[in-house]
Amino acid sequence: MRFDGRDSHELRNVQIETNYLKHPEGSVLISVGDTKVICTASIEDRVPPFMRGEGKGWITAEYSMLPRATETRNIRESSKGKVSGRTMEIQRLIGRALRAVVDLEVIGERTVWIDCDVIQADGGTRTASITGAFVAMSMALHQLYIEKKLKAYPVRDFLAATSVGILEEVGVILDLNYVEDSSALVDMNVVMTGVGEFVELQGTGEESTFSATQLQEMLALANDGLKELMNIQKEVLGADITNQIEQKSGE
Amino acid sequence: MRFDGRDSHELRNVQIETNYLKHPEGSVLISVGDTKVICTASIEDRVPPFMRGEGKGWITAEYSMLPRATETRNIRESSKGKVSGRTMEIQRLIGRALRAVVDLEVIGERTVWIDCDVIQADGGTRTASITGAFVAMSMALHQLYIEKKLKAYPVRDFLAATSVGILEEVGVILDLNYVEDSSALVDMNVVMTGVGEFVELQGTGEESTFSATQLQEMLALANDGLKELMNIQKEVLGADITNQIEQKSGE
Amino acid sequence: MRFDGRDSHELRNVQIETNYLKHPEGSVLISVGDTKVICTASIEDRVPPFMRGEGKGWITAEYSMLPRATETRNIRESSKGKVSGRTMEIQRLIGRALRAVVDLEVIGERTVWIDCDVIQADGGTRTASITGAFVAMSMALHQLYIEKKLKAYPVRDFLAATSVGILEEVGVILDLNYVEDSSALVDMNVVMTGVGEFVELQGTGEESTFSATQLQEMLALANDGLKELMNIQKEVLGADITNQIEQKSGE
Amino acid sequence: MRFDGRDSHELRNVQIETNYLKHPEGSVLISVGDTKVICTASIEDRVPPFMRGEGKGWITAEYSMLPRATETRNIRESSKGKVSGRTMEIQRLIGRALRAVVDLEVIGERTVWIDCDVIQADGGTRTASITGAFVAMSMALHQLYIEKKLKAYPVRDFLAATSVGILEEVGVILDLNYVEDSSALVDMNVVMTGVGEFVELQGTGEESTFSATQLQEMLALANDGLKELMNIQKEVLGADITNQIEQKSGE
Amino acid sequence: MRFDGRDSHELRNVQIETNYLKHPEGSVLISVGDTKVICTASIEDRVPPFMRGEGKGWITAEYSMLPRATETRNIRESSKGKVSGRTMEIQRLIGRALRAVVDLEVIGERTVWIDCDVIQADGGTRTASITGAFVAMSMALHQLYIEKKLKAYPVRDFLAATSVGILEEVGVILDLNYVEDSSALVDMNVVMTGVGEFVELQGTGEESTFSATQLQEMLALANDGLKELMNIQKEVLGADITNQIEQKSGE
Amino acid sequence: MRFDGRDSHELRNVQIETNYLKHPEGSVLISVGDTKVICTASIEDRVPPFMRGEGKGWITAEYSMLPRATETRNIRESSKGKVSGRTMEIQRLIGRALRAVVDLEVIGERTVWIDCDVIQADGGTRTASITGAFVAMSMALHQLYIEKKLKAYPVRDFLAATSVGILEEVGVILDLNYVEDSSALVDMNVVMTGVGEFVELQGTGEESTFSATQLQEMLALANDGLKELMNIQKEVLGADITNQIEQKSGE
Repeated sequence: MRFDGRDSHELRNVQIETNYLKHPEGSVLISVGDTKVICTASIEDRVPPFMRGEGKGWITAEYSMLPRATETRNIRESSKGKVSGRTMEIQRLIGRALRAVVDLEVIGERTVWIDCDVIQADGGTRTASITGAFVAMSMALHQLYIEKKLKAYPVRDFLAATSVGILEEVGVILDLNYVEDSSALVDMNVVMTGVGEFVELQGTGEESTFSATQLQEMLALANDGLKELMNIQKEVLGADITNQIEQKSGE
Repeated sequence: MRFDGRDSHELRNVQIETNYLKHPEGSVLISVGDTKVICTASIEDRVPPFMRGEGKGWITAEYSMLPRATETRNIRESSKGKVSGRTMEIQRLIGRALRAVVDLEVIGERTVWIDCDVIQADGGTRTASITGAFVAMSMALHQLYIEKKLKAYPVRDFLAATSVGILEEVGVILDLNYVEDSSALVDMNVVMTGVGEFVELQGTGEESTFSATQLQEMLALANDGLKELMNIQKEVLGADITNQIEQKSGE
Repeated sequence: MRFDGRDSHELRNVQIETNYLKHPEGSVLISVGDTKVICTASIEDRVPPFMRGEGKGWITAEYSMLPRATETRNIRESSKGKVSGRTMEIQRLIGRALRAVVDLEVIGERTVWIDCDVIQADGGTRTASITGAFVAMSMALHQLYIEKKLKAYPVRDFLAATSVGILEEVGVILDLNYVEDSSALVDMNVVMTGVGEFVELQGTGEESTFSATQLQEMLALANDGLKELMNIQKEVLGADITNQIEQKSGE
Repeated sequence: MRFDGRDSHELRNVQIETNYLKHPEGSVLISVGDTKVICTASIEDRVPPFMRGEGKGWITAEYSMLPRATETRNIRESSKGKVSGRTMEIQRLIGRALRAVVDLEVIGERTVWIDCDVIQADGGTRTASITGAFVAMSMALHQLYIEKKLKAYPVRDFLAATSVGILEEVGVILDLNYVEDSSALVDMNVVMTGVGEFVELQGTGEESTFSATQLQEMLALANDGLKELMNIQKEVLGADITNQIEQKSGE
Repeated sequence: MRFDGRDSHELRNVQIETNYLKHPEGSVLISVGDTKVICTASIEDRVPPFMRGEGKGWITAEYSMLPRATETRNIRESSKGKVSGRTMEIQRLIGRALRAVVDLEVIGERTVWIDCDVIQADGGTRTASITGAFVAMSMALHQLYIEKKLKAYPVRDFLAATSVGILEEVGVILDLNYVEDSSALVDMNVVMTGVGEFVELQGTGEESTFSATQLQEMLALANDGLKELMNIQKEVLGADITNQIEQKSGE
Repeated sequence: MRFDGRDSHELRNVQIETNYLKHPEGSVLISVGDTKVICTASIEDRVPPFMRGEGKGWITAEYSMLPRATETRNIRESSKGKVSGRTMEIQRLIGRALRAVVDLEVIGERTVWIDCDVIQADGGTRTASITGAFVAMSMALHQLYIEKKLKAYPVRDFLAATSVGILEEVGVILDLNYVEDSSALVDMNVVMTGVGEFVELQGTGEESTFSATQLQEMLALANDGLKELMNIQKEVLGADITNQIEQKSGE
């Protein structure tokens, strides 16, 4: 049994509140246990300089935490005048993951800006960000499609992320909270599509290692958790968007 | 009549949700119309270097907006690598205002960090921040007092802020939203205590000016609005804290 | 009686030396007691990107202190790699104040850069900057007008600034020097036009507050001091420019 | 067959020149095909502030490229004034990987600074950096051990890294060069120990995905390549150091 | 004949106004033709970290220009967030030059901060800065000596600087103004002591070169100009300080 | 006799390995004793904004050291977020020196980027950089000329640099290594052309001075050393390039 009473293969309670803010084209508040992230999708009618004239779109993400999202207050990155390596790693991951399930040609020369702002952190903020951002982005792009600004709906498959890991006495577990994450021997983030393909796999032994067998166990656990997360996404996105995506993915 | 149907002397709908986040010592989500700000108060057991050894506490504030709090997306200040003049002006104002109603000697060598993060902006974000931060701070300090870490309750009076201004055809108005703020001839922020004294008065004619008579009209309007805001503060703070403060202020 | 022998309603000795530097289109050295500021006005034949194509001009200000303008040496903001909140607040104030008395349409797509560099500081550097910058700007714009580059003289009214405040045992005083400013309960900067309208009013109780009555007293004192300052401005600007402005303001 | 004539399971030509520079405690020039990296290990007799007093050591890495290591010249990060997200991600990876095979308690309160400077880039610079840095670090720590500054030799196992990926028409391949890396559907970096445990697994589909089966194929290929790399490491480290490490790892 | 009517071996009109500002321990306004620099010397009772405990003092210099010291306005280095290479080169030169004629052991663990702020520029700002800073520093150190805080007067010799150069049709000239500097084939700054020894010699052919013979001609011209500058320094420093220095230098 | 056994007029062992890297248009590894610098020349088909439309080329240089090029590890300038004054001074020197011997009109609107990266430092890194960069640049420009992209070969003369100095008991010496440089009373860098004209002369007495006689001695020593260095340059550049340059310089 885990510290918070969950079984090893159990996700935390997940809620996704859509249309959370009035200005962005898409926005959700996602809660995964006590981790809460505001994810917004903003559509800009141009692409970064290095992509101009290619007729393709771009998806890019930024990630931040409120200073008091955590147990002790963190100094703002704007006050420090620079963004940490951890933040850059996470925002690169989020952008890359979302781009893997979107047809950038269909978007045309537009940028989708994803902003993931963690207002409360309890482990798994990057995976919650991906899972929530997928919903915000899918809704923003659907609106564009509805307004006939896109010739097709560009989202090709579902996308969700979770963590798995190895705890010293507990073994392989799903969806680590902060306490578990801090003491885990191995921590692995898995980003997967609706048809069960990997988009990103990041397994790390911090001062530790893991065997091929443990890798398989972790992947199996992640697979189940991700299916559950995608069911929640389908519910909040509604039948219309869900059908569009499932048709494309051939799920 | 104003654009949103309000009378010239009418506040927008104001709501303050307390204990909004789990980690900070005090936290609220304040909504003033469509303006929504998360205000947190964090207690740190030391003061900045320039104050060490004086036996006094310090209160300092930081202010930020989510990139998509506004109609069009703003670049993050962390990405730009520096904080704008506007942000600095606002955070200095918030800190100064709160310090005016707290007995810093009673706090001892502690810092109260106030963080005001605007998640949705529709004008008046700095005054909403002050009004909300006062509640978060008062609760955080009350907790310290309850835990007997302070020999007295250090909050000496209530504190709230609102804006008044002059609109071309409408005249003097209370609590400007974004559309009004953008077109106002004069914009004035008033920060006041429970006993009706000014803490801060910032009146600005952007490419315009105002007379002594108009100043008096604006101050009268602000006074009424601020009383209303303080009644809401009293309600969410509860009888216990309210009594403590009223005893001190002699209200 | 005040520390330096002045009455409560007395300004310090004020001197404005025009054409102080050879390169700028307008330049003065203003001394208000021991506070000395070099104010220059530079005309650039374009506006910032956000204003292009509107056919209007722009006025913007920068403010700085020599490291040893003060009692103890300050680190240069260029060495720190960033501009402080205080500096930004002051330069925004100066620019905003000057824009309130200039017809930006008449200037056309030009920027007036105001630079206020404090070479010696003894309190009131921001108000001295505004008072001096008004003269430098008025002369630079007059030169443009004389050269027939402007179809009219764009300065609509006089503009000067001073401070008022409340000292513990002395009460309400005019034109605070550094010692007074450091110990004042309340500090208020007033920027006013020739016809006596407010352009900017910034009253601050640092760990203190002020009543409506005290506000009136301070405003009356400021009004008298500002009339005096504008008389000095008129003298150094000469009859020609003074008449031009007075005709416009209807003074 | 691949562009450069290699089989899909073939490494590029790998050379490791030890004691490449005279000042660092350990240094190598590693060449993996046309990718050339100078890796140095510097011993500092203290740890970063957050670790003081714990009696443990720390290993941290920095990574950089000469501006003209690449086909077209890159702007120096020192000129830009900030380190890119990519650089931060790589240096965090290198540090984390090395820490996984070193007993930090044995090192005591010392920091091992790893510097990986790419002088010529042709893909796989991060994996070459890890493979080379392991040798530089092992030699630097061995010297400390020889000088009896450490009570035991702290390196617990071998460590090497390589990449595997999927090329559109070729399928799964080992050790991608720049051309392959640019066009690969999937790119995976694998960091492994001498006993065959994973330290880090980073698989990424850039605008693409991969199946569980493909994952297994890639891991098998990586495993073989890493064995080969570790044989080269053993050769250049010599029998003495190799025996020390093998005893510890129980290989 | 030169553009401004001077002979090739003629200095511009030089004036040094001492005690120019009230706060610094030493301060001058030096004018060399239209070049005007405020030089201040500030004494701090400690040395930078890298020198602590050695019982020696330090002299360091900072240099800046007002934005409108020049024909067209320059962006402030504080706004750009970094100091230019030119500025750094100049401030390193000023500090190094002054250190060459001061006995740092006698100063004890103190830092002399030299600030050279150019308020008007017409060529030769770095040499005017050195010549003026020497006076400000000598007076500040004399005051320390008078107050018996130093056991001896630490200035060992006079120090002045000027420029020489080669103009296309004019040949070798002394003390270049801005127009001459811009078109010179060769520009050389010479810093010399009272006894005629070189402290610094920086000759540069910008897209040009110079022969050994031309070097000798330039050095002879510089020598004469520097003697003249030192006579002006002696006059403003007064007999007391001049005698102290001459005794030490054995002039 | 010197510490490393050299005579006072003796250069260290100098080697220049050409075509050291595969990507740059020109590249060398220059070794001057234990000082080793990678110098590359990159051709870019445009000039910086301030030179556009003039039909002339530009040559600019950047200089850096690997963190562990030195005895103790230096913090990277990219980590510090800014380039030091020393670095800026050196890169300005290298660029200026190279521009003096190249016909920029012949290059047309192209930029030659010179990168000097010190991989091992033992004094004289800036002079080794110039000597090596001249070779890399000459080869890169020769390639352009061979490809008929230039109408003439633009290098007008040879260029090399060395240091001379004064050591307390040894007197005047040539080509200072790190130990000598650290203790030298005077340090002078001399950059000279093939026909023996000066391009740059930078003599500095760090807390010391030098006489006109000592200057002549140092210049004589430098002259001999530079001839030797240019002979080595001629050898590695080969007869073809050497003849081209000698024809132009009239040597």
